[in-house]
Amino acid sequence: MTGKILLAPVVIVFGWAALSGKEGKSDKTAVAKKAIRKVLDKQVAAWNKGDLDGFMTGYWKSPNLMFFSGKDKTRGWEATLKRYQKKYQSEGRKMGKLTFSELEIDVLGPKTAWVRGRWQVVLDKEKPNGLFTLIMKKFPEGWRIVHDHTSA
Amino acid sequence: MTGKILLAPVVIVFGWAALSGKEGKSDKTAVAKKAIRKVLDKQVAAWNKGDLDGFMTGYWKSPNLMFFSGKDKTRGWEATLKRYQKKYQSEGRKMGKLTFSELEIDVLGPKTAWVRGRWQVVLDKEKPNGLFTLIMKKFPEGWRIVHDHTSA
Repeated sequence: MTGKILLAPVVIVFGWAALSGKEGKSDKTAVAKKAIRKVLDKQVAAWNKGDLDGFMTGYWKSPNLMFFSGKDKTRGWEATLKRYQKKYQSEGRKMGKLTFSELEIDVLGPKTAWVRGRWQVVLDKEKPNGLFTLIMKKFPEGWRIVHDHTSA
Repeated sequence: MTGKILLAPVVIVFGWAALSGKEGKSDKTAVAKKAIRKVLDKQVAAWNKGDLDGFMTGYWKSPNLMFFSGKDKTRGWEATLKRYQKKYQSEGRKMGKLTFSELEIDVLGPKTAWVRGRWQVVLDKEKPNGLFTLIMKKFPEGWRIVHDHTSA
């Protein structure tokens, strides 16, 4: 009897710790997913106000940011901004209305995640669209895209 | 004096633990990178022998494998195999010679990594080429691609 009585609190404490550990992890994943979703939502909202600078805050402001599109590599935040300016803000170009859909966010650890989904830009006469894969890392300033692979 | 003498072994032990912990991590990353590189090298070697089944062993054999190409999603290992068969093995098609280059492998944790690089297939009259981003996870059978985004 004494053995059983002594064991009970141990089982309770261990069970609670295991449970809270698991809950803690899925809580953290949910928080990370929400934070990542917010970064992407902010990008879309900025784009749809014609605010390219706001859109660009979703990207890691680093010369090591990498942007893959088709068969072209663009390295660095500045070069990625210029690419967007050329494609969507140069003479006769419009930014149009951006939507992301079919989003799947996979949190791999406290500071790393990846996202896949579909993008579409509705312009006056055309609707360019395609897929994207993002690698995201968490920095002191928040979750940022460190690698963007987009295709159409 | 006594204080200093007593402290010395503590510093030595702590220093050694910190060092070996760090070395342990970079060792594990190096081992993972090597294992991932081997999976990709085996894919290329299989492709260049016309062995599509061998090439396909690099992919997660799951209905949840995802393959992004241009604006098309292919879900599942079987569907991905069929896509390759149609594109490279149907009448009049050849597999050609595949190369991967500009490979960068980022190990995110003991069981997750991502890879980016450039692919090229040399056929008789054309050389289709482009970029890829892979998400890889480690399974009991080894590192496998769970998501492949390719563009040309």
